[in-house]
Order: sequence, then C-alpha cells, then structure tokens
Amino acid sequence: MTAGGGAWVLGVDSGGSGVRCALGRAEEGSPAEVLTSDEPVRTGPAGIDAGRLLGQLVPAAMELLARTGAERVAAVAVGAAGMASLGDDLRAKLPAALAGALKVRRLALAADGVTAYAGALGQRPGAVVAAGTGMIALGTDLTRWRRADGWGHLLGDCGGGAWIGRAGLEAAMRAHDGRRGGSAALRERAEALFGPAAELPGLLYPRTDRPAVLASFAPEVARCAASDPVAATILREAARNIAESAAAVCPEAGPADGDSAHGTADESVSECEVALTGGLFHIGDALLAPVRQELAALAPHARTVPAAGDPLAGALLIASALAREELRLPHHPRMLWVTTERDG
Amino acid sequence: MTAGGGAWVLGVDSGGSGVRCALGRAEEGSPAEVLTSDEPVRTGPAGIDAGRLLGQLVPAAMELLARTGAERVAAVAVGAAGMASLGDDLRAKLPAALAGALKVRRLALAADGVTAYAGALGQRPGAVVAAGTGMIALGTDLTRWRRADGWGHLLGDCGGGAWIGRAGLEAAMRAHDGRRGGSAALRERAEALFGPAAELPGLLYPRTDRPAVLASFAPEVARCAASDPVAATILREAARNIAESAAAVCPEAGPADGDSAHGTADESVSECEVALTGGLFHIGDALLAPVRQELAALAPHARTVPAAGDPLAGALLIASALAREELRLPHHPRMLWVTTERDG
Repeated sequence: MTAGGGAWVLGVDSGGSGVRCALGRAEEGSPAEVLTSDEPVRTGPAGIDAGRLLGQLVPAAMELLARTGAERVAAVAVGAAGMASLGDDLRAKLPAALAGALKVRRLALAADGVTAYAGALGQRPGAVVAAGTGMIALGTDLTRWRRADGWGHLLGDCGGGAWIGRAGLEAAMRAHDGRRGGSAALRERAEALFGPAAELPGLLYPRTDRPAVLASFAPEVARCAASDPVAATILREAARNIAESAAAVCPEAGPADGDSAHGTADESVSECEVALTGGLFHIGDALLAPVRQELAALAPHARTVPAAGDPLAGALLIASALAREELRLPHHPRMLWVTTERDG
Repeated sequence: MTAGGGAWVLGVDSGGSGVRCALGRAEEGSPAEVLTSDEPVRTGPAGIDAGRLLGQLVPAAMELLARTGAERVAAVAVGAAGMASLGDDLRAKLPAALAGALKVRRLALAADGVTAYAGALGQRPGAVVAAGTGMIALGTDLTRWRRADGWGHLLGDCGGGAWIGRAGLEAAMRAHDGRRGGSAALRERAEALFGPAAELPGLLYPRTDRPAVLASFAPEVARCAASDPVAATILREAARNIAESAAAVCPEAGPADGDSAHGTADESVSECEVALTGGLFHIGDALLAPVRQELAALAPHARTVPAAGDPLAGALLIASALAREELRLPHHPRMLWVTTERDG
C-alpha cells in the first residue's frame, strides 16, 4: 500500500552551513514550507550525531506540520554531508526515533551527493558534480551508483573550493618566500583578507573549520585568474580534476531497457547528462568553461546541463518517491539507505 | 664578561615526537648527558604552551645538573617546532621562568629550522632543508635568515612527509574511484595499512595528528616508486618542491667580508653548502637523487653536504656560542630570539 500522492513528505538537507527542512505534497515537486537553521550538525567521535540532528529535525517538522495543518508525514528523506562515511549513528538511531517522534516509517538517508543528484536530474540516469567547499561526483545508470571523490580536503575533494583556496594560499606563501610558483597577486589578496603572510599558519591551524577557511579564498583565486597566470593555472587544474571525477562516473551503456543492439563503441555510447551543482560554480565561466573543455576531451558523450533544483529539492523528491513507492534511484547501504518499517 | 668555555650549557629540542634535553660544556660540541621524553609539548590556543614546556624542561635540567655535578647552566637554547609562528607564549614567559628556576640569564629561543641549521652547518653560511612530517628550508649569509616553506600541511610543507603521504593516498583514492591519476599499487598499500579505501576518511579526519598519519604513508610511496609510475612522479614532484625551497634560501653573494670585487654573475656566485636533514631523507636515493638533480638545475652553485649533527646538537651549539658570546648566526625576533638579561 502506498501512502498516496496526497500525503505530506519531509525533505532535509544537513550541510556545513546549517540544516534546511522542507515539507511538501508527495505528488508535487516543490516544497509548501521551508525552515532554515544556521546551526550545522557537528560531527562527533561517532560521526554525524543523530541526537543533534534530531534536536533540529523534530521541532522543525512539528513547526512545518503546524504551519500547513498537516497531521503527519508519510516519508522523510535526510541528505547529509558525510553520510556515506560518517552516517552510522544516523542509520542506527533515526528509524526508531522518527517512528517515535513523527510516526513516520518510510525513511531515506542519503549522502549529500545523492540529494544533489536527485535535485539536479530527478530520477534520470546521468551524473552530477556537487562542488562547494568539497567536491563529489555521482553517476548512475539506475542500476548502481558510481562515486568519484568527495573524500575530504586531505584525501581529495580535488578541484573543490577548499582545494582551489588552498592552492591559492600556497602560491601566496611561495611568493612570500621567493619560491618558484609564487603569485604576487594572490599574496596581495591573501594579505588583504588574512593579514601578513607569515601569520597565516597561526590563524588557520587552530581553527576547526579549516576547509571552510581555505575555501573562502577560492573566489579571490577566480578573480585573479583573468590577469594572473598562477591563478589561471589553479583554476584550469581544478577544472581538470572536476572533469576527471565527472568522467569517472558517467554511465556508459545504452538505453536502460537494454533493447537496442550494441554497435561499435561510437554507436553504443549514449549521451550522458552531467549537471554541475553547488556554490563553487557561482565562480562562473572562469571555472565552467575549462570544465566543459576538459570534460569534452575526457568523456565526449557527456553533455553539461543545468540542475533542475538544489539538494533540498532532491531530498523532497526522494521522500515523495518513497511515499509513492516510485523510488527508482538505486538503494545503497551508504549512499541511499532506505527503511520502510511497518507499524508494530 | 663571557660565561667562559668551562661553563655548562643546556640545549633543548621540542618536537612532535617529544622533548630532548642535552647538557654539555660550552667549549665542547657534544653533550655530556641527554634526557629524552616521549611526551610532545602540545600547542594550545596561545601557541606553544610555556607552562607545559617548563614542566618538562626544568625537572630535566635539574636531573642533568645532578648527573654531571654541575651547579648551574650559563645559557639555554630551546629549539621548538612552530616557534616562528606559535612561540609568543614562550618568548613572553621563558626568560623570567628560567631566570627563576635555573638562574640562567642567557636564553635563545630558536625555530626548529634554526637548530637544524646549527646542528648541520654550525655557524657557517649556507642552507639547510629540514624534512620530516613537514618541510622547511633555511639559509643565511650570516647577516640575515632566509626562510622558505615550513608553513604546515595545508599551506605548504611541500615535498615533506605529510605532502608525499597525502599525494600517495590521493592516488589510492583515485584508483578506488576509477579516476585518472590512480595507482593500483598505492591503493593496495593503503588498504593493507589502513583498511578499505572508502573507510579512510572516517579513520583520518577525527584524528588530531592528521599530518603524522599522512606522513606514515610516505615510506610506502617511496617503496612503490621503483615499479609504480604514479609513486615515482610523486617522489619526483616532492624532490622538485624541496629543491625549490632550498634554491630560494641559498645565499648568493661572495665572501661575507665583502672584500672581493663583484665580477660577472658566473664569477661572483660562490658555492653554497646545502645540508639535507631530517627523517624524511632516510627514504634514501629514491628521494635524494632527484633532489640533487633538481637542485643542480635550479641553483648550480649549491652543493649538498652531510649534516654534522642533529637539531639537539644545534641547540647545544647555540647555547655554547651564547655562553661564550660568539653567536654569529643572525638574531631574529621569531627565528632566533636571544635574551641576555643581567642579574638585578
């Protein structure tokens, strides 16, 4: 039995800048009401803390239900940064907690890349690059997920905001030292933002939000790129890294119904939609143009498309599909974890 | 009035793996007694914590004095990782504290690069690269210090242990993703050491010693370099970065007494001794050979030489020179801070 299209569903997007909750009808794509909190759910020793997320999610859901006059929600989808690698506490505690607090039995826990995907492309096959402070690429042919990067600022996130900002600050320090690879322009921008170069380590390392501090310098790198060759090279390298991740996850096969004959390599590769999403692409053509160039070289069947919606819209779309039993995006123990417990 | 060559002096080396103290005679180069602690002095909100350092240094000094039968020390030199950027608390509190506890009025606070320099080259002009988890290059013509890098694992330390290990782990994650630039060999080594690739972020990011964890993978990169082209490229890039820092700090001028005429560029550039010190170079020729090659291309007047001693020997040498009023290494407010308060 499906919950029906008239039911209400809740989408949640938990990220580095806070938590957003949207309530909407399962048959509609857009939210009826949205609540935003500026307080991010911090990561503790057990990963993303279920108690802290619930402490925001449950009151927000109550408030949204009160605003719309809805009695209950038929499904909840939570997208969270770090869900894939740090979501054990959520997977362990959220089903029972939400069944208790909101009487909801249909729950999806999605990596933020998956909600970005659903927001951008809905339930169509393709690939999404989600780039902000970090960077992850996800693709699916609707049979399985392929993921590239999203490993954080030390192991990857290659081409993301922290990556670009870090490279820019390194170039500033090189200029300070008189080392090869330095940029006087980036040094000037770094000192305007953060003060004397030699004091930057003392500012950066004690912070707990180091990736965000690094990423805050990415727009300066983009601004310098038009006139500074070091900054231009950083953006070009970022674009190459982003294209490498996108190319690694683009589905290659023909139509998913598998009826068409496999021809030569040229014929059997269908087009792959690639949506570039996330705040990093607000940099604009200084980054977008080289990403398209690099992607054309690496994956000729890829075609960049605008994202239809954001990760919050994606969470709501997943919750709606779950309520209607029409979720076609592949389940996965870490990427898209779904539980549909029955009432006891 | 000098304290005289017969006086006792104390050298201290405070680093990421602990604190070492050496007591020796001012006229001798080598320590009479050494005490080692495995407990590093951690960095707090005010930088290196003076109270914690004193908590180790004073009892160690008392013990060393008791062992040798010496009554007091004439000078103390403390070399510490992070002294240049995080040493404010030490500079504020150590002079009075050591005058009180050890009756010592001659104190030098040196960046660990400076003690590495003094240990390697004594008081001769030249350049030193100190590479372990991090990487810093220091050079002097005995009129001023030139520093390159040593800015930590996010802003630089280019070519150091954390840099090499990080690049190796990134290549492992690329292989896991099927991205360009991946190395199956490095992925295999990373999984042998840390477990499944996808779980590496969950292991690494909650740690407070992330640079050390990254650096622990550097020997694996070195071991793979003979047969794996990605690992070989990482070592070659590390060598290039190290050579860039060394080249940036090599003194260029002729004899320091400045009597010789300046000829053409070819004639006026004298040889510059460059000592490569620190645990990273235990990797051996896989790293040393490309460093020498890159350095020859960047700074033809540079000549790599073995280090005479380690940073603890350098701290003792600085303390000895301070006691004898023969300190020729340039004073500097952050790199080599010297105070010689008189008795009240």
